[in-house]
Amino acid sequence: MSDAKPPLTAAAIQAVLDGSPFIRFFGMKVLSADLAGATLVLAMELRPELERRAGTGQWHGGALAGLIDTAGDFAVAMGLGAPVPTINFRVDYLRPVMTARLEATARVRRSGRTVAVVDIDVHDAEGRLVAIGRGTYGTQPG
Amino acid sequence: MSDAKPPLTAAAIQAVLDGSPFIRFFGMKVLSADLAGATLVLAMELRPELERRAGTGQWHGGALAGLIDTAGDFAVAMGLGAPVPTINFRVDYLRPVMTARLEATARVRRSGRTVAVVDIDVHDAEGRLVAIGRGTYGTQPG
Amino acid sequence: MSDAKPPLTAAAIQAVLDGSPFIRFFGMKVLSADLAGATLVLAMELRPELERRAGTGQWHGGALAGLIDTAGDFAVAMGLGAPVPTINFRVDYLRPVMTARLEATARVRRSGRTVAVVDIDVHDAEGRLVAIGRGTYGTQPG
Amino acid sequence: MSDAKPPLTAAAIQAVLDGSPFIRFFGMKVLSADLAGATLVLAMELRPELERRAGTGQWHGGALAGLIDTAGDFAVAMGLGAPVPTINFRVDYLRPVMTARLEATARVRRSGRTVAVVDIDVHDAEGRLVAIGRGTYGTQPG
Repeated sequence: MSDAKPPLTAAAIQAVLDGSPFIRFFGMKVLSADLAGATLVLAMELRPELERRAGTGQWHGGALAGLIDTAGDFAVAMGLGAPVPTINFRVDYLRPVMTARLEATARVRRSGRTVAVVDIDVHDAEGRLVAIGRGTYGTQPG
Repeated sequence: MSDAKPPLTAAAIQAVLDGSPFIRFFGMKVLSADLAGATLVLAMELRPELERRAGTGQWHGGALAGLIDTAGDFAVAMGLGAPVPTINFRVDYLRPVMTARLEATARVRRSGRTVAVVDIDVHDAEGRLVAIGRGTYGTQPG
Repeated sequence: MSDAKPPLTAAAIQAVLDGSPFIRFFGMKVLSADLAGATLVLAMELRPELERRAGTGQWHGGALAGLIDTAGDFAVAMGLGAPVPTINFRVDYLRPVMTARLEATARVRRSGRTVAVVDIDVHDAEGRLVAIGRGTYGTQPG
Repeated sequence: MSDAKPPLTAAAIQAVLDGSPFIRFFGMKVLSADLAGATLVLAMELRPELERRAGTGQWHGGALAGLIDTAGDFAVAMGLGAPVPTINFRVDYLRPVMTARLEATARVRRSGRTVAVVDIDVHDAEGRLVAIGRGTYGTQPG
């Protein structure tokens, strides 16, 4: 397409994340951005507002959902060169999450003319799979 | 069951919501809790941390996802008398959301021995349907 | 758009359904096609190949999934004037299904520039809600 | 548990599949049943009733959905020793499917006290990923 944009580097993705009040509040960090593998890894640290119950150290599921959606979105955006709209996503919670740090690995399964489908695995700091997501994102320029 | 608990009133649900740092940060409020109709309505107001981009007045989708999951959870909890674990949920975003206030209406479609399924419709302040959710929650005592 | 097509009537939808070997085998029938309400109702009768176990009278879930996807697709197609691609769908099974006849009511929740989202409720012959579906369909001409 | 059952072998799974009129009609075959890897592979061949349009050689999506649900179910059943109820599943269609043979690889991501979550990848005969599924199944004895 004539409007094709250059891919986003890890630094460029981090800059976009930091420009969103919602994502910055969650404190998401880009760990790696593998364009050839269509795989993006984000990390997030627990802060008090993200706890399910005060002082328990357990994450609220909503924080994981936000991480999953964001990781999926930027795994697609990385290749297209710009953030994309989320059409829908699904989250499955597999285990309570108690570690201070999480990582989400988003892998594009298919990127087509109108939509892309991404799988996102979330692991806790001890390497346990704690939640999985699957999202559909729009791939057409606005 | 011998461990059946009394249903939760709107005030009791609000107290549980306020006891969660995550939900309290989002500022969710119970508008109505219709036990006979198995329908719960929550409202949420935009605050700067929930914006997609600073100063735009547009909600980040992650805030809607958190509202949807919470409304679905407590629609089930209302009848069972205690919060329930989210097993999975799906969110479909239908329109960008620009009004300062949102409402989520969660309706239990089926509550069985092990799981319940809930539909959640989110409307903006002008009555437009902006997102829909569908969630599965565990119904067994921990 | 210059390529807008006239809406499909119930008879036109039935003709398309009958032209698909898969759908004809399932024996799906259009009960009503409400264009203004964006709602389509299909019916299906049990046949031996659709049983979960021979002679039990219980439907296999796969038959319900096929009915749900088809009802959702043609609820969108009705307005656009031509069948549309399924992007994804979700099925939640609520109860075992034992009656000889099923009805699926598909209602378009939102039809946009690139995708439409449809909710599908399946009832058995005694009016019980037995399964629900939610699907995303492409709305752009091929 | 006192009611734990021995795992199902590939031959035992095939016998159960063949005992279901619906699955037998679809002609699903067990290719491999890896208990240690919690991974089951099923194959299916195109027959005229499974075509989207007569004579085109293109599979109807409903046939893929049936394959996905069945593969997911028996990936869980393999370990538990008996078929399990599908609670819900999601299918994402990635490409039109034109080859005479399909394979579905179902991998259990998590099997817990009440539910299991399974990912299912469907490839065509040329090794292209054509659809993906994700399902939730009940794990409690009836």
